[in-house]
Amino acid sequence: MMNSVNWISDLPLLATAAESEYAPFVLAGVLLSLVIIYLASKLGGELSRMMDLPPVLGELVGGVVVGASALHLLVFPDSGAFASESMVMTTLQFIGNLTPEAVTSIFASQSEAISILAELGVIVLLFEIGLESDLRELQKVGYQAAIVAVVGVTVPFAAGTAGLMFLFYVPVIPAVFAGAALTATSIGITSKVLSELGYLKSKEGQIIVGAAVIDDVLGIIVLAVVASLAKTGEVDVFNVIYLIVSATVFLLGSIFLGNFFNKSFVVVADKLQTRGKLVIPAFIFAFFMAFLANAIHLEAILGAFAAGLVLDETDKRKELDQQVIPIADILVPIFFVTVGAKVDLGVLNPIAPENREGLIIAVFLIVVAILGKLVTGWSVFGQPGINRLAIGYGMIPRGEVGLVFAGIGEASGVLGKPLQAAIIIMVILTTFLAPPLLRQAFKEPSSEVAEPVDAG
Amino acid sequence: MMNSVNWISDLPLLATAAESEYAPFVLAGVLLSLVIIYLASKLGGELSRMMDLPPVLGELVGGVVVGASALHLLVFPDSGAFASESMVMTTLQFIGNLTPEAVTSIFASQSEAISILAELGVIVLLFEIGLESDLRELQKVGYQAAIVAVVGVTVPFAAGTAGLMFLFYVPVIPAVFAGAALTATSIGITSKVLSELGYLKSKEGQIIVGAAVIDDVLGIIVLAVVASLAKTGEVDVFNVIYLIVSATVFLLGSIFLGNFFNKSFVVVADKLQTRGKLVIPAFIFAFFMAFLANAIHLEAILGAFAAGLVLDETDKRKELDQQVIPIADILVPIFFVTVGAKVDLGVLNPIAPENREGLIIAVFLIVVAILGKLVTGWSVFGQPGINRLAIGYGMIPRGEVGLVFAGIGEASGVLGKPLQAAIIIMVILTTFLAPPLLRQAFKEPSSEVAEPVDAG
Repeated sequence: MMNSVNWISDLPLLATAAESEYAPFVLAGVLLSLVIIYLASKLGGELSRMMDLPPVLGELVGGVVVGASALHLLVFPDSGAFASESMVMTTLQFIGNLTPEAVTSIFASQSEAISILAELGVIVLLFEIGLESDLRELQKVGYQAAIVAVVGVTVPFAAGTAGLMFLFYVPVIPAVFAGAALTATSIGITSKVLSELGYLKSKEGQIIVGAAVIDDVLGIIVLAVVASLAKTGEVDVFNVIYLIVSATVFLLGSIFLGNFFNKSFVVVADKLQTRGKLVIPAFIFAFFMAFLANAIHLEAILGAFAAGLVLDETDKRKELDQQVIPIADILVPIFFVTVGAKVDLGVLNPIAPENREGLIIAVFLIVVAILGKLVTGWSVFGQPGINRLAIGYGMIPRGEVGLVFAGIGEASGVLGKPLQAAIIIMVILTTFLAPPLLRQAFKEPSSEVAEPVDAG
Repeated sequence: MMNSVNWISDLPLLATAAESEYAPFVLAGVLLSLVIIYLASKLGGELSRMMDLPPVLGELVGGVVVGASALHLLVFPDSGAFASESMVMTTLQFIGNLTPEAVTSIFASQSEAISILAELGVIVLLFEIGLESDLRELQKVGYQAAIVAVVGVTVPFAAGTAGLMFLFYVPVIPAVFAGAALTATSIGITSKVLSELGYLKSKEGQIIVGAAVIDDVLGIIVLAVVASLAKTGEVDVFNVIYLIVSATVFLLGSIFLGNFFNKSFVVVADKLQTRGKLVIPAFIFAFFMAFLANAIHLEAILGAFAAGLVLDETDKRKELDQQVIPIADILVPIFFVTVGAKVDLGVLNPIAPENREGLIIAVFLIVVAILGKLVTGWSVFGQPGINRLAIGYGMIPRGEVGLVFAGIGEASGVLGKPLQAAIIIMVILTTFLAPPLLRQAFKEPSSEVAEPVDAG
């Protein structure tokens, strides 16, 4: 007789047996969540564009609308939601006739899968930002931009952190995290407005764009340091120094060693013949660097960013950029919408009196975010007659990197809900404000009016 | 005093609190697994190509090498592996100084994330196959191809299922599943060999390619039906009829309604202006159809395939195809490598006497897989002098869809390890055998030698 062989799979009955039983429902939940995420991102992005605002802002607001603040189409257990509050889960329960326990287990698995996809999304985003940051361009903008960048990182960080700690008695770790979230300028928004106004190639435009690029790099280093502090839960001077040094060495080291790696990458990619011959080696490199950064207690996105900077120096850059775009188009919105969805703006609802303290702090953060960047205009030296107000306004918008702070702060559990909501509102407001302010600054005559130059 | 506000996140301490604490390690595990998967897929794919074999075969073998059968770089708890057997997990344990309980929890989360990515990979694969299947071409090939396809699906399915049940006493559900895995022909492999030999446009070539396309469609319907049977665990005549009807109605209904939907899709895609303006609406549609198919108890891949067929009829086809390629390049290898990695070929090791029964069944499956397709050559009528042997050989290779069977059989837990391994070996062997057999068949003179025609 041959029926002694196990024809039915002989799984050990661990927790995974349950997961295997519910696997089709987890997949259904992931698919439905992705449909909601993509709908929110496209609707928000397109509406934003119609109002002449950056699409990423619309994706974020789209996430807020479908998330914990409003429609509850997309909620997450780690922000305290129960399965019964998720529209996706109630739909699955209706379709599959599931028990509440089954739904809770499916909810956890589904949310974890979406969170991982969102993390892959931010990794691909930073890889793409790295690919698009031209290091040689950066060297050209020189000292002026570097000073503006450093002032624009230091002032909001110091004022924000100190204010939260000493005015509002916020503990040091969340205060440092929120202060750090004020540092990064969004290059995308400003450069788009500058280009529309025809000032992209003006002296002011060059300084702003250069400073924004440096800001991104500084911001990512600050994030790596702050997120590591959040993991250990204490601020120890030696640890801070170790983290700053290791993040800087990691980034500079990657760029330096990358000059040698570059050539072998091109040689290998040229030899490959099968599908994905360029994009797969690039992702092997990006994911390995992300893993490496994670393994030495920095952030995965720092590694992905470094990988992008390195591959940007190869002559495969354009082709690779082209192929990374659709992948980023699919993965990045998952990150932005998820960040928006996880925020509960209800904690800042001004009608409830218990929210008043949180609201005051949100207002404080927004004021620091604006003034802390505005002063950068006056840090420019040796340029008589330069439009300082325009430079200050140009540095105001926070964007992708500010959201990365909010997302990672949420994931590491260090930001309380009011602080997290305050950061999101700060990103939204600064992004809304910058374009009209910038337009106005270039209209007002300064002592020597900057000539509009064609954006080319 | 304002420190009454919760600045530290106030998570409810569910299971997710643990997941939040380990989240960086889960991400690190996913990144490292993806690096291994991509390395295995590229090495395997390129080696395969050098040996003039299809890259997908190399990706599968690459998965077998890094998986449970050999290197243990990529193993999964639902195939019975423990965290300590996973090289990825021992690496993480070394880096993070983790407790065994933490590693087990991270292992489960990481494996689930990779499994979801693999499922998204097979969904994107079927979407792409749908996008590339031209329905109008299919109508042209006509009855000859349809008969070859139906014979080539019916004979291996009936012979395989009956043989397993009556010769080897395999229970009905796994027998039906294994029989079904014998049905689908891989169009990719055969058409590449035909094109190399210059016979793609010959009468034989046209029949083979047409039959392979129909086979894919029939195979996906068979899979949807069989996988649903596996979920309920019993074969009930009414249920089988319901499933066959619903799968067919779903597919034909999508194509029919798709003719109307098509136009609105193009109108919407033309209006969108932001990034991902084509690919995001396409994925919304594909994922929604996949969800729908899943919700009515069919398979998600059937919905993705239908979505691809529908969008193939729009004039956005080429542009969309172009953008789906890099996304598929990144996601599809996760599926193939995972299928290979989950198989334990050790259960068919001929040295161990307890494996003998499994081995005999594997040999039986392979013989049925070859003979069941070979007979299709003699089902062609009204074509005197046609090279029947060439048609039969051309139908032999199983490929992507055969692997989809193995993958879904594994996920639903219906296939025991020996049957699963036998299916994988069947796919590998038939794919290896077909090209040399086909070359030989076209060299042997048949009663009226088919003239080589340029592949155009």
